[in-house]
Amino acid sequence: MTNKTDTPVTVIGLGLMGQALAGAFLKAGHPTTVWNRTAAKADQLVDQGAQLAPSVGDALKAGPLTIICLTDYQAVRELLGAADAELDGTTLINLTSGDSAQARETAQWAEQRGAHYLDGAIMAVPPAIGTAEAMILHSGPKPYFEAHKSTLDALGTVTHLGADHGLASLYDVAGLAMMWSVLNAWLQGTALLKTAGVDAATYAPFARQIAEGVATWLPGYAEQIDRGSFPAEVSALETDARAMAHLIEESEAVGVNAELPKLFKAMADRAIAAGHGGEQYPVLIEEFGKPGTD
Amino acid sequence: MTNKTDTPVTVIGLGLMGQALAGAFLKAGHPTTVWNRTAAKADQLVDQGAQLAPSVGDALKAGPLTIICLTDYQAVRELLGAADAELDGTTLINLTSGDSAQARETAQWAEQRGAHYLDGAIMAVPPAIGTAEAMILHSGPKPYFEAHKSTLDALGTVTHLGADHGLASLYDVAGLAMMWSVLNAWLQGTALLKTAGVDAATYAPFARQIAEGVATWLPGYAEQIDRGSFPAEVSALETDARAMAHLIEESEAVGVNAELPKLFKAMADRAIAAGHGGEQYPVLIEEFGKPGTD
Repeated sequence: MTNKTDTPVTVIGLGLMGQALAGAFLKAGHPTTVWNRTAAKADQLVDQGAQLAPSVGDALKAGPLTIICLTDYQAVRELLGAADAELDGTTLINLTSGDSAQARETAQWAEQRGAHYLDGAIMAVPPAIGTAEAMILHSGPKPYFEAHKSTLDALGTVTHLGADHGLASLYDVAGLAMMWSVLNAWLQGTALLKTAGVDAATYAPFARQIAEGVATWLPGYAEQIDRGSFPAEVSALETDARAMAHLIEESEAVGVNAELPKLFKAMADRAIAAGHGGEQYPVLIEEFGKPGTD
Repeated sequence: MTNKTDTPVTVIGLGLMGQALAGAFLKAGHPTTVWNRTAAKADQLVDQGAQLAPSVGDALKAGPLTIICLTDYQAVRELLGAADAELDGTTLINLTSGDSAQARETAQWAEQRGAHYLDGAIMAVPPAIGTAEAMILHSGPKPYFEAHKSTLDALGTVTHLGADHGLASLYDVAGLAMMWSVLNAWLQGTALLKTAGVDAATYAPFARQIAEGVATWLPGYAEQIDRGSFPAEVSALETDARAMAHLIEESEAVGVNAELPKLFKAMADRAIAAGHGGEQYPVLIEEFGKPGTD
């Protein structure tokens, strides 16, 4: 009889992130095997109870589940393509950063070698690994994920996005786009208010409230996109464009950078020129869905 | 003895927004006087119990509090500068859209005529007026606001931002920048996921979760700005810039517009070139706080 924390797991690649992943498995009680090109990076983990495998092949053989986290996908293919690396029957979860095309290609490559391959993306910094705040996205055949979810739970909040191996990477960059957008909009507002002597701490709760409020609109707006119909239930794009002009003018008048609102307006203006001025904001999906003009 | 809903109020300007404002006061039981250049726009409000004043002067005289909402600040000055318009002793709340400089100039102009002047901004569409969802910002001397807050409560969630009359306008455009940023980031992600056959409704809850999560960071990040010190506690700007390059590459690879991430990266690259690559994201406030390069 075994309980779930007896499930062995292997971690290949012990950069800051790999070390955090292995550390979280150890902390949850999993027998953890590690491997890294520079073996010294395993020292601290070995002190905590990890087994250092003498070769990648041995690391893969140590258990049914291997997590790999290297600098790029090429490194993954080179390492796992070595003669002694037996992938057949192993579940391989690749948490290396890369794009959706690399994820799909590597999935095909690994599956041809008999691996059960999942691609993943880590939306967290190493110190957050092992806490609920660490969001770890997985894509690939769902049964592979389900079979190991109780083990993966040691890493943070783990989710499965779908069978397409490219999804984890796409969700990852989409999430980052949201992160930078919220931060940039907050910086734009902070800079504007600073010209009136308002400090950042005073303005921040307002920015937070607006971001959280607008976030709640997204599921409803998504329905417009899926229907392909954008009636101006709340306001029309041309009203937004006029207010964007105000934001540009105000920013320039007080000496604040106006590049961001200028780009917003340029995209809105193109949609209006295409005849969508009387429709609602999500009609801009047509502009986002095609390569830019630059 | 009067209760608060006996307080008379005047609304000048009966566009869609002015009608909504007057309607909300009437609904809350306030004796409401209205005026509009085209008197016919008052018909529906008169049916609901409003008094139509024969002139702007009469409208101002009907009570201690006047709300004005016209197309622009010039219209406000022209109308209230008329010979029979007595502003002395009146509390005047100007909810017309404009910029912070116009608000400050108009405040000075109105105060010279003896008005108790507040500038305001409405962060809501007309149908939301009278509900808690309608956020109405006020700036100017706080006692003027406090004296009429119980009346203004009929309009929605009303707040006072500070004594500087320009604040309502600045918060308004800052809030709009956040709104468009969240929507654009969501559209960028929706477009990316659409290339993998993921519909907008499936992606939206993820975008919402990220936006809400990042929003909670803002008060903490604001402290870095107010201290003027940006240690890379979570991650360094150069790490963000590398991930921005991934987002650009991924967007271009799947045929999605990359202008937004390119602007993000251009701003981050300028801060890195200025020596801030090892600091945390909010160090970008220095880029936002100065006119752009274009």
